[in-house]
Amino acid sequence: MVNYFKNKNILITGGLGFLGSSLAHKLNEYNAHVTVIDNLNPLYGGNIFNVETIMDNITIIINDIRNTDVLIPLIESADIIYHLAAQVSYIDSLSIPYEDLDLNAKSTLNILECCRKYNSKAKILFPSSRMIYGKVDQGLVKESGPANPLSLYGIHKLASEKYLMMYYNNFGIPSTILRLTNPYGPRQQIKHNKYSLIGWFIRQAMEGKTIQIFGEGTQLRDYIYIDDIVTAMLKCTEADDAIGETINIGSGKSTRFCDMVKAVIDCVKNGNIEFVPWPDNYEKVETGDIAVDVSKLKNITSWQPAISLGEGVKRTFEYYKIYFNKYV
Amino acid sequence: MVNYFKNKNILITGGLGFLGSSLAHKLNEYNAHVTVIDNLNPLYGGNIFNVETIMDNITIIINDIRNTDVLIPLIESADIIYHLAAQVSYIDSLSIPYEDLDLNAKSTLNILECCRKYNSKAKILFPSSRMIYGKVDQGLVKESGPANPLSLYGIHKLASEKYLMMYYNNFGIPSTILRLTNPYGPRQQIKHNKYSLIGWFIRQAMEGKTIQIFGEGTQLRDYIYIDDIVTAMLKCTEADDAIGETINIGSGKSTRFCDMVKAVIDCVKNGNIEFVPWPDNYEKVETGDIAVDVSKLKNITSWQPAISLGEGVKRTFEYYKIYFNKYV
Repeated sequence: MVNYFKNKNILITGGLGFLGSSLAHKLNEYNAHVTVIDNLNPLYGGNIFNVETIMDNITIIINDIRNTDVLIPLIESADIIYHLAAQVSYIDSLSIPYEDLDLNAKSTLNILECCRKYNSKAKILFPSSRMIYGKVDQGLVKESGPANPLSLYGIHKLASEKYLMMYYNNFGIPSTILRLTNPYGPRQQIKHNKYSLIGWFIRQAMEGKTIQIFGEGTQLRDYIYIDDIVTAMLKCTEADDAIGETINIGSGKSTRFCDMVKAVIDCVKNGNIEFVPWPDNYEKVETGDIAVDVSKLKNITSWQPAISLGEGVKRTFEYYKIYFNKYV
Repeated sequence: MVNYFKNKNILITGGLGFLGSSLAHKLNEYNAHVTVIDNLNPLYGGNIFNVETIMDNITIIINDIRNTDVLIPLIESADIIYHLAAQVSYIDSLSIPYEDLDLNAKSTLNILECCRKYNSKAKILFPSSRMIYGKVDQGLVKESGPANPLSLYGIHKLASEKYLMMYYNNFGIPSTILRLTNPYGPRQQIKHNKYSLIGWFIRQAMEGKTIQIFGEGTQLRDYIYIDDIVTAMLKCTEADDAIGETINIGSGKSTRFCDMVKAVIDCVKNGNIEFVPWPDNYEKVETGDIAVDVSKLKNITSWQPAISLGEGVKRTFEYYKIYFNKYV
């Protein structure tokens, strides 16, 4: 893997966020030429501290990917594009519909149009979401399952997926869609509870607060630690068989929401749990249990998850114990 | 049906086009209060002549539905909204990606946002397209079949469908999605060949020209005459069982493309046929054979198609014989 990325030009949109900066660290280690673009929108997860230790080795552009003039030269010189810039709260998407459309669908169309015109060889990796599937009746969700998103966030991720496959089929622009489950780990924002709940709950526990669980908290989720995601994304990048494919990325192991909260409390050894009724705006977009089939990822890349939930929570807590003030 | 629509306030976006004006005529006959809004974009099918005989009975607003200030009062007072304004060429959608996004997806989101804020009781009828399905391997296409659109047009129609169902589930805004096959008949634009080929071919035959068929022209299509569509749409409007549903509207009978062309030549008794290779930009978005299952429409509404292809072509030709100069 090291050789594949060496001296490659990598563009990461949203590259100061949780996922983007974690990729940047690993790609820098592999001697790739990394450029990140991020608008540091305070609502989202962009944080300049996320790249502090590699700042001298990568190119950082603080700008908005909606500025096509800025985007074009970056795309022209890119071998690989990780298009991670996004509005990331599925709950918020209903209250900012046009911004969600802009950031989660139109931005992908814009990147593809730039690729079509200026660099149709750039390989695009796009993080989609389990939110594509909506409510799943039962069993493991395969990539071929129906797409019934319950939120604008999910609808716009679906539109982006369709764009990518259409530009691949029509113009040969190579791309891979990665449907992520519930990512967590160091460098994730912990300013609010709109997304990335493990980080938020670790913060609440560290502050001795009460963590609210909606309903009984028995819904199943697939939590995946950031290092496992980064490895999976990089393996998908170098796998030719991943081009034109849609691939679930999850740990493959489902955990009850309330058990995740207990793991946080047990690890931090502070804070309490309170059970409260579902708020209306959450309940309507709640997907119920989710368990994804990650056999396609394993077949294409020989990837295996390495970090258990307990271990991942521990590492995340250790990180925020040191850098808490950089994230609040 | 007459009673259901009597004195109802009806808003038709794109109401000067083929489908919109045909609905307006019938709804006016049923004593509904009809308002149409249309920007008369010269590329599309809006034509003021389409409503000449009912102009004194309906309200006509020449404006763009992207002007929310104009849209809000119209939505506030509407009982039923036929949201037909659109970019209608699936071929063109690839060369005007942002306009297609604006007109075929964002406009629907905008209408739904206006409904949510100002009138969540308005019933919305939305014409989607067989283009949602993409290439179909074989057999009759059911509404529950997979959505694999090959063009931006299809992707944006799909996004609109998902918006409508999401706003129905979240906010109770009642809507029905109607997936149309290949509509034709009087009042359709015959200025160019970007969509509505039967009308265009009738024009070419009338002018003694040579009609080009791409490839062998053996692909199956489901052509449906405008009167049958209008009846189906009105029946779906009054059927409570249609709310929240996606329904195919087609004749239920498939015809080879080349046989449609022969029917035109036989009717007009002029013009010739030439077989030419598929142009690249058409071939990539070509869906192949399509045959849709219309049993859901029949079950919900007791609708039956009344006009055969031969009869429909004859009526269309009769219309353009008289009004040719209003459409070229």
